[in-house]
Amino acid sequence: MTIKDIAAKCGVSVSTVSRVLNNQPYVKQDVRDKVMKVIEEEHFVPHEGAVSLAKTQEDSFGVIIRGINNPFFSEMVTVILQRGHEMGYSTYLHQIRSCDDEIGEAASLAKSRKLKGVILLGGNFDRTEEEIRQIDVPIVCCTFTNKFGVVPKEIFSSVSIDDEAAAYKAVSYLISEGHKKIAVVLPSVDDKSISELRYMGYCKAMKEAGLAVTDDLIIATGDYSMEEAYAGVKAALERKAKFTAIFGISDLIALASMKALSDAGYKIPGKCSVIGIDGIDMTSYFIPTLTTLVQPRDVIAQRAVEILIGAIEEPGEGTHEIVEAQLRIGESVKKI
Amino acid sequence: MTIKDIAAKCGVSVSTVSRVLNNQPYVKQDVRDKVMKVIEEEHFVPHEGAVSLAKTQEDSFGVIIRGINNPFFSEMVTVILQRGHEMGYSTYLHQIRSCDDEIGEAASLAKSRKLKGVILLGGNFDRTEEEIRQIDVPIVCCTFTNKFGVVPKEIFSSVSIDDEAAAYKAVSYLISEGHKKIAVVLPSVDDKSISELRYMGYCKAMKEAGLAVTDDLIIATGDYSMEEAYAGVKAALERKAKFTAIFGISDLIALASMKALSDAGYKIPGKCSVIGIDGIDMTSYFIPTLTTLVQPRDVIAQRAVEILIGAIEEPGEGTHEIVEAQLRIGESVKKI
Repeated sequence: MTIKDIAAKCGVSVSTVSRVLNNQPYVKQDVRDKVMKVIEEEHFVPHEGAVSLAKTQEDSFGVIIRGINNPFFSEMVTVILQRGHEMGYSTYLHQIRSCDDEIGEAASLAKSRKLKGVILLGGNFDRTEEEIRQIDVPIVCCTFTNKFGVVPKEIFSSVSIDDEAAAYKAVSYLISEGHKKIAVVLPSVDDKSISELRYMGYCKAMKEAGLAVTDDLIIATGDYSMEEAYAGVKAALERKAKFTAIFGISDLIALASMKALSDAGYKIPGKCSVIGIDGIDMTSYFIPTLTTLVQPRDVIAQRAVEILIGAIEEPGEGTHEIVEAQLRIGESVKKI
Repeated sequence: MTIKDIAAKCGVSVSTVSRVLNNQPYVKQDVRDKVMKVIEEEHFVPHEGAVSLAKTQEDSFGVIIRGINNPFFSEMVTVILQRGHEMGYSTYLHQIRSCDDEIGEAASLAKSRKLKGVILLGGNFDRTEEEIRQIDVPIVCCTFTNKFGVVPKEIFSSVSIDDEAAAYKAVSYLISEGHKKIAVVLPSVDDKSISELRYMGYCKAMKEAGLAVTDDLIIATGDYSMEEAYAGVKAALERKAKFTAIFGISDLIALASMKALSDAGYKIPGKCSVIGIDGIDMTSYFIPTLTTLVQPRDVIAQRAVEILIGAIEEPGEGTHEIVEAQLRIGESVKKI
């Protein structure tokens, strides 16, 4: 009788038995009791090294990252690795390019690497049920909230901010500081993704305040890069677009917008205010410090791991959690 | 007869045979000839799917990263993944904390993940031969240059800038712009690592110009974090240290130094100039744009992969390459 036989007899994974033997956390009491009962019934004594053997054959989950150069994701990865390690899992990091199909990659990796589950950072929203079902292990998305609703909520889990609400909060803050002409810098107004959701929040705040969203206030740049955001704001200033504040829908976009303003001779926030969303660490070192809506990165990363491991060890319906983004006041917004 | 048998008969890896069958590059002509000869002798016809099978069982190498939050490393990773993919290898990314033992981790990962080789980004310099020999696959270091010479050059490879020369170049540039009181912000003057090497370059440039390196010009902060660099410069300004320029031994340190100067009311470069080393993308978006010595990141990353795969496929003595860092003039240095 080996630790594998015990696992098979209990209908749980080897790592669960290992966790029980090692008296580690994250095994539900009823599962723990069942395992201990079988161990006692079978008079099972782990042979020398069985415990550590089970440990070296530890379960892995994957993290698929679209754009490791996004500091928000790399900051999340640090916390995910730590939490995974604490919970007895090793982690397989996989970066994909923005043109890659993250669902296909995740599905093939899960098979080839025998991953027990997958966390997706970044990625598209226009997915079908059939596509998601290619991945035959539990999935947790940290940016995909299925807001446009084509995928059944049961077949994946998510933990993220409410992008529309965070954008609404950012723009409402600018309005409360007296701004009326507020430009938005974003990849696209209709990408069925984060950009569209944050644009919806912008529109909602403007509309509620009775402010017009005119075409010259919308600076759509095609992608999430700093290069394009910089070029977009530069072009808007050259065509004399009139605004007193910019809402960049990500911190990187907001930072690039600040640089374009500065290079055109605009003082920030003297002549133009700027606000972002994400709360990446680097924003605190910019001159001026960026005012931004901070995603509770550590909470998202930790919960993503906990939800994933929960789903691996006790499969069930999807879990969906929303966490709140908090305003961090820097130096880039001025009352007018 | 399978592709494995061909590989065994030739004394090469399955992936080498696969590359020959797929007519892919990076197989030396004599190896290619040998494989083709055996294939012909054995009248070997890959069975349907054998080629793609060989591809799914592709070889992997590992990348051990100390501090994924360092944008310089995450920018390198993008290029490493791309080049590895082009050369038919999959890549296993593993991040470690600054307190972890990267050699031990690399050794155990190489075994558990059956890695064919390992690239190390970041890490300590005070290694012994015994420690390095724990890793029984080829190693390429991108930051470790063995400058202090305790490890035989044959048992590892490296590709990196000459840290001392880059620092010398940065400080010489400040001197050529008229600066005499030049502070250096760094983790340590004697860590037997990058910090000490770059400090040596600073001292050399100062000495050659007949400038004194007095204690109040050395701002040693204990680690590579932006927090400590900020605190170090802030404290130096509070104790009225006199300097007209700061050499931050990394871009992150230089950026944090700029913020500390700005928060203390110093205009950059009006009242104080700042220069860094690394050339991370973000420096172009800071206000002012950081002047820095750019590591040819893409070249280092590509050569690291090429050297590693070369060493995997044809084991030999270590290869050591030095690439040159280039001055990129931004807006943070002023002639005085």
